[in-house]
Amino acid sequence: MTRLDLFIDRMVSQRACLDHAIAATDGLAGPVFELGLGNGRTYHHLRETVVDRDIYVFEREIASHPDSTPEPEFAILGDVMETLPQALQRFGPTISLAHADLGGHNRDKNDIFARKVSPLIEPLLAPGGLMVSSDRMYFDTLEELALPEGAVPGRCFIYRR
Amino acid sequence: MTRLDLFIDRMVSQRACLDHAIAATDGLAGPVFELGLGNGRTYHHLRETVVDRDIYVFEREIASHPDSTPEPEFAILGDVMETLPQALQRFGPTISLAHADLGGHNRDKNDIFARKVSPLIEPLLAPGGLMVSSDRMYFDTLEELALPEGAVPGRCFIYRR
Ligand SMILES: C[S@@+](CC[C@H](N)C(=O)[O-])C[C@H]1O[C@@H](n2cnc3c(N)ncnc32)[C@H](O)[C@@H]1O
Ligand code: NI
Ligand code: NI
Repeated sequence: MTRLDLFIDRMVSQRACLDHAIAATDGLAGPVFELGLGNGRTYHHLRETVVDRDIYVFEREIASHPDSTPEPEFAILGDVMETLPQALQRFGPTISLAHADLGGHNRDKNDIFARKVSPLIEPLLAPGGLMVSSDRMYFDTLEELALPEGAVPGRCFIYRR
Repeated sequence: MTRLDLFIDRMVSQRACLDHAIAATDGLAGPVFELGLGNGRTYHHLRETVVDRDIYVFEREIASHPDSTPEPEFAILGDVMETLPQALQRFGPTISLAHADLGGHNRDKNDIFARKVSPLIEPLLAPGGLMVSSDRMYFDTLEELALPEGAVPGRCFIYRR
């Protein structure tokens, strides 16, 4: 497997999981959280595909493509270790869909971070809400779901409250 | 189409065209040219897939992933508008495969650049040599080939001397 192969699998799996999760949470009114904006490709995909729900973006520093940059009132700037607890105060357990792609190139570091951030995401989800992640998460009360068609095992994970 | 969709189509098409072109030029001994290293994903793919051919990388400034960085003797630094004519002096018409992914986000700029760089690439190819590009190129003597299975029309182009 080359880095190109791995990357394609990750992108294709993200899209398959997001499309599935967006459709599956269509009946929920609560906002969508994009954790990690990066270049803004998955945010662009969410914005074009999610209907009638607010999308909030969590990012340390905005560096996205101009056409994939959230309006200031939908950008929550700072370290998610701080901004997610604040978001729980503000939004309560109302999130219909959370997508996290916070990892870098170091698998071990990503795993350590996934363990730390999981308990901050868990209480935010609405009943029936879904969480899509590029890294395995560590939730006590959420159920891991089977991947939709087209997603590659290990490249994407879906959880449901 | 979202930016994620477009990006996936480009990556998938790059891989399909590269795999096809690598196999089709297997009998040629001349070097492979990677024009534009970027993150180094397609270079990594070339390095893992091309057998018994040197791979030279042309890039303004190396900023690739550590495991996808060429040895100094295979990195040709500078603007391709200058380094390609120098490469013609050094290598002559011996290149078995050239891959170009030099573009940025601006389609019109990419097209203008493709017109300028095409005549610098054209004389470098060996007879039977192939050129794979993410942008449409403007060659006088090369033949445009049909895309291999899996490539998306418009996201990748293949030419043969
Ligand atoms: C889209 S990136 C290549 C991505 C690469 N195929 C990958 O898979 O990671 C384009 C690269 O071309 C380089 N580039 C663009 N114009 C150039 C020029 N005139 N001379 C040299 N390098 C150039 C840029 O510096 C950039 O790193
Ligand atoms: Ni990396
Ligand atoms: Ni762009």
